[in-house]
Amino acid sequence: MGTLLDGKVVAASLKEETLKAAKELREKGIAPKLTIVRVGANPSDLSYERGALKRMEGCNIDTEVKELPEDITQEDFIKALKEVNEDKNTHGILVFRPLPKQLDEEVIKYVIAPEKDVDCFSPTNVAKVMEGDATGFAPCTPTAVMEILSYYNVDLKGAKSVVLGRSMVVGKPVAMLLLGQNATVTITHSKTKELPAVCAEADVLIAAIGRAKMVTSDYVKEGAVVVDVGINVDEEGKLCGDVDFADVENKASMLTPVPGGVGSVTTSVLAKHVIKACTLQNK
Amino acid sequence: MGTLLDGKVVAASLKEETLKAAKELREKGIAPKLTIVRVGANPSDLSYERGALKRMEGCNIDTEVKELPEDITQEDFIKALKEVNEDKNTHGILVFRPLPKQLDEEVIKYVIAPEKDVDCFSPTNVAKVMEGDATGFAPCTPTAVMEILSYYNVDLKGAKSVVLGRSMVVGKPVAMLLLGQNATVTITHSKTKELPAVCAEADVLIAAIGRAKMVTSDYVKEGAVVVDVGINVDEEGKLCGDVDFADVENKASMLTPVPGGVGSVTTSVLAKHVIKACTLQNK
Repeated sequence: MGTLLDGKVVAASLKEETLKAAKELREKGIAPKLTIVRVGANPSDLSYERGALKRMEGCNIDTEVKELPEDITQEDFIKALKEVNEDKNTHGILVFRPLPKQLDEEVIKYVIAPEKDVDCFSPTNVAKVMEGDATGFAPCTPTAVMEILSYYNVDLKGAKSVVLGRSMVVGKPVAMLLLGQNATVTITHSKTKELPAVCAEADVLIAAIGRAKMVTSDYVKEGAVVVDVGINVDEEGKLCGDVDFADVENKASMLTPVPGGVGSVTTSVLAKHVIKACTLQNK
Repeated sequence: MGTLLDGKVVAASLKEETLKAAKELREKGIAPKLTIVRVGANPSDLSYERGALKRMEGCNIDTEVKELPEDITQEDFIKALKEVNEDKNTHGILVFRPLPKQLDEEVIKYVIAPEKDVDCFSPTNVAKVMEGDATGFAPCTPTAVMEILSYYNVDLKGAKSVVLGRSMVVGKPVAMLLLGQNATVTITHSKTKELPAVCAEADVLIAAIGRAKMVTSDYVKEGAVVVDVGINVDEEGKLCGDVDFADVENKASMLTPVPGGVGSVTTSVLAKHVIKACTLQNK
């Protein structure tokens, strides 16, 4: 089989880089800090939060969790978010989404301070991702994809990349990031005709369509690099990606596992983004 | 040869639609108005302005030109732009770009009121284009491409579309608009390997790379729809597009001329956007 693209190895490398930067900031008297804004106590939010807090601790980044009541009004939520915006000790803000129904994300996304918005909630950062403006923050998941490709020295310049999925959390931003590395980028989706054949032209295939094991070997060119962003549960109740790993592993030259692939890198990207935000805010 | 995609015919159809909407607004006592903000008197700005003013007049849209001195300071420019933002009679604002060097577009783009920003200067509109949010305003040129495809009933659903060029004024936004119509979208550029072959896979090819007559018949699949966004000057000093028209016309099933193609539709889109802005502001 091909090379396993090991998310944990990439995360460890990012941790080293982030720790070094955190140390330099602290030597200047600046303590990088992430504030998490969580409404209610959704189990998946809590699970991600545990991982994120542990990662920040490992990267020497301070944290605070602002837990807000499940039934908070929009007015109170905005007030709370503005307080975090204005908190001089907070450099990065992560707001768990989706927010409860009474909170209008279409309004709130304009409230979060773009320079602290480390997971691309603000339209200002969405625009920067499209523009390829490096002062912005792309969402953590597509950035994790790019970190994995970079760590394993995948040459993207002129490469044929195909993105399967067109969501705002992965598909579209990863397409823009790949374009920023001079890849040729094709965005495919459920309406794409001859989808397996189109994917099978890719030198680099990013699967982010959210359907368990959909990407079988007929979607993959011999020797392609395959990054699996999916997190699904298979018919046996086991965690699996969008890629049928067993079917693809002997065809791809490089392949991420699920779990242990992209998902293992997202909180490391979050840490890197907090450091970046902190550095930019203290220039 | 294939069908000529005639920009003037599309413009005439848009004019009819816009006139009808303008009439309905005026019957409610609302006079749709575009304010153009121009710094200095650049000949190409003046030329576009003449076309735009004529088009607005034909569409029963009021206009005002705010001409500002070439050496205006950033502070004064921002003050002037804010006045237009706050002018209740102005529904759409067009700022000619690029602005002179002393004016920082990276600052100013955040000043223009997004709801009046009819040519996608504001990051809020850039983000809406990426999100496929129909309340936003895509830039006029890529929207003109879509209007032409729509007028000539080009079926985009699942179609293989290839965009040649990745600028923020055409390539990237047109890719997002095509995606919004369920096309499969490939974004190519100067670093794309085997560029002619990649383009020759397109059912719909959008040429927006800014190089005179670069797209020859080897870039075009037999029967493809080809939209030429380029405005260049050839070796004889004549206006020409990115497509070598004479070489491609017998291979494409549909093809825009230059001039008389996309460029003939942009001011009609501008008029349509002013009407849309006016309607949204008076809901």
